[in-house]
Amino acid sequence: MSGLRIFVDFAPAPDVLELLQQETRGHQLVFARTLATSVLAKPEPDPQFSTVDVAFGQPDPQAIEGAARLKFIQVSSSGITRYDNPKFRSLMAGRRIAVCNSASVYSEACALHALSFILGQARNLPLALKTRTANGTDTWHALRGACAPLRDQTVLIVGFGAIGKRLAEMLAPFHMKVMAYRRKPRGDEGMPIITPGGLGHALAKEADHVVNILPDSTETRFFFDVARFSNMKPGAVFYNIGRGTTVDQDALHAALHSGRLKAAWLDVTEPEPLPDHHPLWAEPSCYITPHIAGGHTGEAKTLVHHFLRNLNRFVQGEPLLDRVM
Amino acid sequence: MSGLRIFVDFAPAPDVLELLQQETRGHQLVFARTLATSVLAKPEPDPQFSTVDVAFGQPDPQAIEGAARLKFIQVSSSGITRYDNPKFRSLMAGRRIAVCNSASVYSEACALHALSFILGQARNLPLALKTRTANGTDTWHALRGACAPLRDQTVLIVGFGAIGKRLAEMLAPFHMKVMAYRRKPRGDEGMPIITPGGLGHALAKEADHVVNILPDSTETRFFFDVARFSNMKPGAVFYNIGRGTTVDQDALHAALHSGRLKAAWLDVTEPEPLPDHHPLWAEPSCYITPHIAGGHTGEAKTLVHHFLRNLNRFVQGEPLLDRVM
Repeated sequence: MSGLRIFVDFAPAPDVLELLQQETRGHQLVFARTLATSVLAKPEPDPQFSTVDVAFGQPDPQAIEGAARLKFIQVSSSGITRYDNPKFRSLMAGRRIAVCNSASVYSEACALHALSFILGQARNLPLALKTRTANGTDTWHALRGACAPLRDQTVLIVGFGAIGKRLAEMLAPFHMKVMAYRRKPRGDEGMPIITPGGLGHALAKEADHVVNILPDSTETRFFFDVARFSNMKPGAVFYNIGRGTTVDQDALHAALHSGRLKAAWLDVTEPEPLPDHHPLWAEPSCYITPHIAGGHTGEAKTLVHHFLRNLNRFVQGEPLLDRVM
Repeated sequence: MSGLRIFVDFAPAPDVLELLQQETRGHQLVFARTLATSVLAKPEPDPQFSTVDVAFGQPDPQAIEGAARLKFIQVSSSGITRYDNPKFRSLMAGRRIAVCNSASVYSEACALHALSFILGQARNLPLALKTRTANGTDTWHALRGACAPLRDQTVLIVGFGAIGKRLAEMLAPFHMKVMAYRRKPRGDEGMPIITPGGLGHALAKEADHVVNILPDSTETRFFFDVARFSNMKPGAVFYNIGRGTTVDQDALHAALHSGRLKAAWLDVTEPEPLPDHHPLWAEPSCYITPHIAGGHTGEAKTLVHHFLRNLNRFVQGEPLLDRVM
């Protein structure tokens, strides 16, 4: 299969563009008239789209309905919020369009980011990095004493996919108890799995660290609500590298402000960035990074390599990587 | 063996004191007239010291010479700078006084601290935590792109004892190349070991991350000097959780300022804290915590448990833990 028309909706850097062009010789790259600056930007309509066989980026779900030749969509992010609904899934199934995300491009960096949060918290880094105090002072003793050992603590990973699995591997040397929440356990997780019915109990009784990796969907919106925060272990720490929409931020703020939660580390919020007057900025134990968890040096190249591997598999009729529909 | 007189030169919190008192019944605790606020404080002379059998804390080396009954010294830190010289070692050997440090009390926290530095650097945390930028901006792309993957990078652990060994265990999931510098390799390190002759080469050619865990001694002072920093791989990151005296801080500053080193993360400096006008404070890629690497919740209790285990071994005539002389 050659001569495919491949729609690309973002602007790669020169070296990455060259890689993409070289490795897709025999096919035709069709660049969107308006190129996206981020995977979260709203796609612009583009008349060329109706003529392509393959789409690489964040194509508009509406435009996909009108693209009669389309057979393979490589979504450029881990999150597939735009596409993750029964109507779209049924359209893809009916027209036999394969949809893949790019989870494996970002999972290593996301797991590292989550672990950097857990260790930053354990070692009290934000405060320690701005404290200039002499050995033996009360401030110094307090700072040392606030560094909680990880050994024997419990981590609950909420949303257990590629990132959660990798995070669990990275947590192995710390002698912690690691468990995960997953809607549909597969039995190969290698740790205790909590299903929806059991979640309240576990959050309330056990987890010192709750790592949220849930994607955005109608089912996950406000998953972490007043009730879930109220049931967490007093002094627990909440981490979010999933999506901001999965958290009731007022409830999170209240849980932090009351001291029920010891701290929150958020890479995602709703909206992003939070407006300057948002009360979470003012919480001293709320640490926010600007949605960079999946980012890494050479990210665009990793993404293009992922696409090229899948394009090759598509052409050869082999199973695709990170296929989600 | 009972009725030992045990000199203690620091003031435990009430619950820790109770533990110490309960578990040393049959012996006599002798508290120093002036109690130390930190293991780095200079000990005060105390006439009681000449009458004790056991010392727990940071006893004055001079006073030890005059303490005729002394048979076991439990130093309360990992570092033994005060005692680590040929004259003192020979005195201990001659009088058959056992000296133990408390490496195993602090090694877990120290290794976690070093790893929190490595991950904080990898994920660009100090900058990310203060950047409020929208997805897709140049700042955002730069922040993501500055997050260097750890996979396939090289870590050199300089000074390979209990902390280095534990750090290497914690680094195992990251698929990095880990090697260590050790004056006297034992053959059981489980990784490539560089001895003094080979160090220049390895620092120059390979290490992306240089983790300094050297103790303070006459041999380690200014170990990291102009030549060693100049030979490091351009863009390497330097971490110090050993002792500040092992680093020529002017040379470190020059290496950071010129951009040869990408960053430095220091838990120890000389002096501590650095004076406010010290140029390292002004280097944007120099991150300093105030000598808290070994600190952790319940630290005093962990230390007392360590002492009690050793006291029991001493009484039973069994081999002592963390024995250094």
